[in-house]
Amino acid sequence: MNASPASHKAHARHRSLRRTVYHMLGGEGHSDPWVKAVDWFLIVMVALNVLAVVLESIEHLSIAHGPVFHAFDLFSVAVFSVEYLLRLWTAVELNDKRFHHPVYGRLRWMVSPMALIDLLAVLPFYLGMFVEMDLRAIRVLRVLRVFKLGRYSMAMSVMVAVARQETRAIGAVLFVMLVVLIFTSSLMYLFEHHAQPHVFADIPTAMWWSVVTLTTLGYGDMVPITPLGRMLGGLTAILGVGMIALPAGVLASGFSEQIRQRRQEYREAVERALEDGTITRRERRHLDDVRLQLGLSEEQAAAILEHAVKHPDHCPHCGGVLHRGDGA
Amino acid sequence: MNASPASHKAHARHRSLRRTVYHMLGGEGHSDPWVKAVDWFLIVMVALNVLAVVLESIEHLSIAHGPVFHAFDLFSVAVFSVEYLLRLWTAVELNDKRFHHPVYGRLRWMVSPMALIDLLAVLPFYLGMFVEMDLRAIRVLRVLRVFKLGRYSMAMSVMVAVARQETRAIGAVLFVMLVVLIFTSSLMYLFEHHAQPHVFADIPTAMWWSVVTLTTLGYGDMVPITPLGRMLGGLTAILGVGMIALPAGVLASGFSEQIRQRRQEYREAVERALEDGTITRRERRHLDDVRLQLGLSEEQAAAILEHAVKHPDHCPHCGGVLHRGDGA
Amino acid sequence: MNASPASHKAHARHRSLRRTVYHMLGGEGHSDPWVKAVDWFLIVMVALNVLAVVLESIEHLSIAHGPVFHAFDLFSVAVFSVEYLLRLWTAVELNDKRFHHPVYGRLRWMVSPMALIDLLAVLPFYLGMFVEMDLRAIRVLRVLRVFKLGRYSMAMSVMVAVARQETRAIGAVLFVMLVVLIFTSSLMYLFEHHAQPHVFADIPTAMWWSVVTLTTLGYGDMVPITPLGRMLGGLTAILGVGMIALPAGVLASGFSEQIRQRRQEYREAVERALEDGTITRRERRHLDDVRLQLGLSEEQAAAILEHAVKHPDHCPHCGGVLHRGDGA
Amino acid sequence: MNASPASHKAHARHRSLRRTVYHMLGGEGHSDPWVKAVDWFLIVMVALNVLAVVLESIEHLSIAHGPVFHAFDLFSVAVFSVEYLLRLWTAVELNDKRFHHPVYGRLRWMVSPMALIDLLAVLPFYLGMFVEMDLRAIRVLRVLRVFKLGRYSMAMSVMVAVARQETRAIGAVLFVMLVVLIFTSSLMYLFEHHAQPHVFADIPTAMWWSVVTLTTLGYGDMVPITPLGRMLGGLTAILGVGMIALPAGVLASGFSEQIRQRRQEYREAVERALEDGTITRRERRHLDDVRLQLGLSEEQAAAILEHAVKHPDHCPHCGGVLHRGDGA
Repeated sequence: MNASPASHKAHARHRSLRRTVYHMLGGEGHSDPWVKAVDWFLIVMVALNVLAVVLESIEHLSIAHGPVFHAFDLFSVAVFSVEYLLRLWTAVELNDKRFHHPVYGRLRWMVSPMALIDLLAVLPFYLGMFVEMDLRAIRVLRVLRVFKLGRYSMAMSVMVAVARQETRAIGAVLFVMLVVLIFTSSLMYLFEHHAQPHVFADIPTAMWWSVVTLTTLGYGDMVPITPLGRMLGGLTAILGVGMIALPAGVLASGFSEQIRQRRQEYREAVERALEDGTITRRERRHLDDVRLQLGLSEEQAAAILEHAVKHPDHCPHCGGVLHRGDGA
Repeated sequence: MNASPASHKAHARHRSLRRTVYHMLGGEGHSDPWVKAVDWFLIVMVALNVLAVVLESIEHLSIAHGPVFHAFDLFSVAVFSVEYLLRLWTAVELNDKRFHHPVYGRLRWMVSPMALIDLLAVLPFYLGMFVEMDLRAIRVLRVLRVFKLGRYSMAMSVMVAVARQETRAIGAVLFVMLVVLIFTSSLMYLFEHHAQPHVFADIPTAMWWSVVTLTTLGYGDMVPITPLGRMLGGLTAILGVGMIALPAGVLASGFSEQIRQRRQEYREAVERALEDGTITRRERRHLDDVRLQLGLSEEQAAAILEHAVKHPDHCPHCGGVLHRGDGA
Repeated sequence: MNASPASHKAHARHRSLRRTVYHMLGGEGHSDPWVKAVDWFLIVMVALNVLAVVLESIEHLSIAHGPVFHAFDLFSVAVFSVEYLLRLWTAVELNDKRFHHPVYGRLRWMVSPMALIDLLAVLPFYLGMFVEMDLRAIRVLRVLRVFKLGRYSMAMSVMVAVARQETRAIGAVLFVMLVVLIFTSSLMYLFEHHAQPHVFADIPTAMWWSVVTLTTLGYGDMVPITPLGRMLGGLTAILGVGMIALPAGVLASGFSEQIRQRRQEYREAVERALEDGTITRRERRHLDDVRLQLGLSEEQAAAILEHAVKHPDHCPHCGGVLHRGDGA
Repeated sequence: MNASPASHKAHARHRSLRRTVYHMLGGEGHSDPWVKAVDWFLIVMVALNVLAVVLESIEHLSIAHGPVFHAFDLFSVAVFSVEYLLRLWTAVELNDKRFHHPVYGRLRWMVSPMALIDLLAVLPFYLGMFVEMDLRAIRVLRVLRVFKLGRYSMAMSVMVAVARQETRAIGAVLFVMLVVLIFTSSLMYLFEHHAQPHVFADIPTAMWWSVVTLTTLGYGDMVPITPLGRMLGGLTAILGVGMIALPAGVLASGFSEQIRQRRQEYREAVERALEDGTITRRERRHLDDVRLQLGLSEEQAAAILEHAVKHPDHCPHCGGVLHRGDGA
């Protein structure tokens, strides 16, 4: 506040630069060609990194082109480290108020999921410099960088919303699976241990059989041979069908619910726009933003709009406009 | 009624103690820290028991730490026996009128599903003392204690409701599966017995193949090799896809229906609360109870509440009553 | 018409006997204890027959108890033959007008699905008497009698309705499966024949691999080993996931649609009953019949009834009663 | 315009012939028996071609009947080439305006999906004449002709609409699958490479294991044996269940949404037809066309029609307009 004009100016320049960098890293919108270029550069970097990890695991390639792989890894770590630091620096520019404090805001940003992924993408490299680690593990763990792509997939918003909405149901499914897993593996150990002492050696090993059966995977490396064991095996397999049907049912109902909610939100936005009788060009642009945000297709949106125009809700007593939708 | 004051007082003290124990065992609500402590103690006990069963099945651990496992089992049986007796004693405190009679009420409680599970958790131990039983079976059957956890999983209410609602549909699916199982295994025995007399030895053995195929498990321990057998095998596999799709469809529609019903119930509770125009603090607490009971997420509840406030059952212009037509 | 009184009386007695037999065979309702006894006798007979076929396939049982199995089979054929003839005789009593003609009606009945199943249950036995047939085949084909149980499963009405409603969608799924099957097996033959000439010997053999992979069965008896073959194998497996997801989606939407339709039908029945303002005892009995016929649970029916009473539809202009539901 | 009458007449005859050919190839409707005959001829030709490819792959048939297969292939190529050229010629008759230009219209038609399939059906034959190609590949690739059947399957319109509507969701599912695939295969390589260096030789090989596990296929040719590997294997299998449940959920909700949209469209068509109070024969024919186009069953259409008649948009008592509120 009481700073000299020079420091004031420097500070303003610093803020303006930070704002520019923030935008370049895709902070808001993706219309600017420079922003798109940065996006694509980072996406291609991640893809090449994954490719490098995969190819380096092939022995003769790893031997023949070792230095190339090493150089590319150094370059990648440099790029992703700079990206991480720039994101940390510009975190205070985020729209969310929680990140605005210069220190606590940045610390808060550091523990956000995407920031942790960005950190994990470079951490194994730096850890390997200080701690004694299996070199091969460090190499393979670079594959964690693939999760950085999560930032760029816009089609997943419905999927994430369904996952959040159905968290408890999915948790219940996993709990049921765990109980069934413990129960069937213990019983199978009881039934098959005498007949195949080396195959069903103990309950942890029987659990491997149980997982393979409950997920209807069926490798065939462990198979019951006694009549009781086969009966339990058949029951486990049928429970396994339920273990597939249960999450399928939960997710199906979750997606339907999400689409219903999103249609209703769009309908309400349409009704707000229609309150004055017409939809202006600005309102149409706004509706299109809402549509994209809700992940509705153009056809779905058009159908809702048409319906809202054709069937407005009026009060039967006085004729006033009502907004009803299907609230229950 | 005509008892002496002293016995009266003793009786009152007895009832008050019973009531306290009833609450400690999680009879009503989970807000009290002591109740939570008891809950967590029992949950950890069950988890440790399951772990013990699993670890004891590993031979070298069982030999090295036999006495520890034995001592822990004695302690567990003691704890679960006391728990069972306390629950039996306090059963008359349950809200349900059917359990209020001191004798018949307790007998009725004893045959309720959760009471049977609690009994099964300790029964093998006592049975082993009187009857000659396979020691290993007694040990492994302790894993039944895992079902005691069912009491603490609140997220499963929707799942149980769907299971109850769709009981007949699930029964029909299992019946169809049984008929298909009998039919395909008999035919496969007919087709493959000559080619592989030791693999498809009889129909019960062929049934094992049928279950493994109908659930798309596919261990590969029994595989048809004749052209007719492979045709039937392919048909069975396709029917197996139907056997997975059928319950998935039933459950998906069941979950959707449950969520629809629960949303509507919550909506009606909200409308009752809104009848006087506002939602008091007490009504809000009640709505939250209803929400938890219905297993709705806070977001879903908030959306229904907001919708009910914005789109009331009364016309905002003239106050006339509006009737929604989405009842069927 | 001009028959003598005696023949008239005989005819009347004949008709009355036929009507009684018709009712005994479960032609209408299941309340009479005699009808239930006949039902249960036939169900137990079918179950015992299936058990006999399964047990007879076990060699040592078949040798030890051959005559018992044979006698039971003769008895079963006699019972099911008499049942078939009685059903044929009483077919003209069926409610459906198409069966009323004494000759053509019975012929029409003979080609109805349940009649064909009843015929198939005894046909192999009679065929074996005239035609030279594999004795083992005749024995095993008795398992066809299990389909007779279809008559007694009332919970399957929703399932049959969904199957009929989605026939075209299921047909389209099977068509897609066939095209994918032909395509992937031909390509896999092209990729793997050189590497494994005895495993992927020709396209029919590769089709077996394709079915096993597309249904995510995965026996492991045929596995691609070339890079191209494994890529195609992975693609086929992912298409296989689609082949499971597709019918699951079709059936889920089909069940939802059926339940919506049935709820709506019940709602309309309720509204018809409510037209005079109250629900009489007779109307209540009728609604219960409708509910059972539609396969709705008591809770669902109660919810619809309550909603219809609380939210009747009135015309906003004149106040007349409307029946609307959610027709679109 | 200024052409001589003769050329004018020739041109008119040319156009009329083109129009006839266009109709013969099923351009519009399928009522004409000649059109049906052409349809069936082409369908049978495709089926016989697929059969020929399959049979020719069986060595002894290929050797014994080589000339027959060759002759039939020449005939098929001739038929499909003529079909392709006729379709190219008559493309300008298509209803879509984009195809009306004699040159650009036909070029646009050539890159439409069905045209490309028609081209692919004959291309390998002509390519084989000019380029050196594996003869067996040319033979097997004739199986591509099976995709020509897509033109005749009318039941797939709902399926295609769902696929188009859910494209982004399916893309997101595939993206999640890819990320999980890369992640699990890299980690499994890390865990199992030391224990089974020849089985989990490198990450591309581990990817084969990952695909086989994530799709719950489970061939059993590659199975983890270390404790860490089995834990990751179990996790991968459970993720695999999610990979099946996810698209099942997406498709279930997609089908429900499509059917809802189509029912609503049909309802609106019915209401337009009912505007004058009755449905004329012409309107009925039009409704039937709409029904077929929307892929609704006759029963569904009848239910919507009946509902619309019984519950009109107008009050039956006073004639006032009623507005339904199920638009969102």
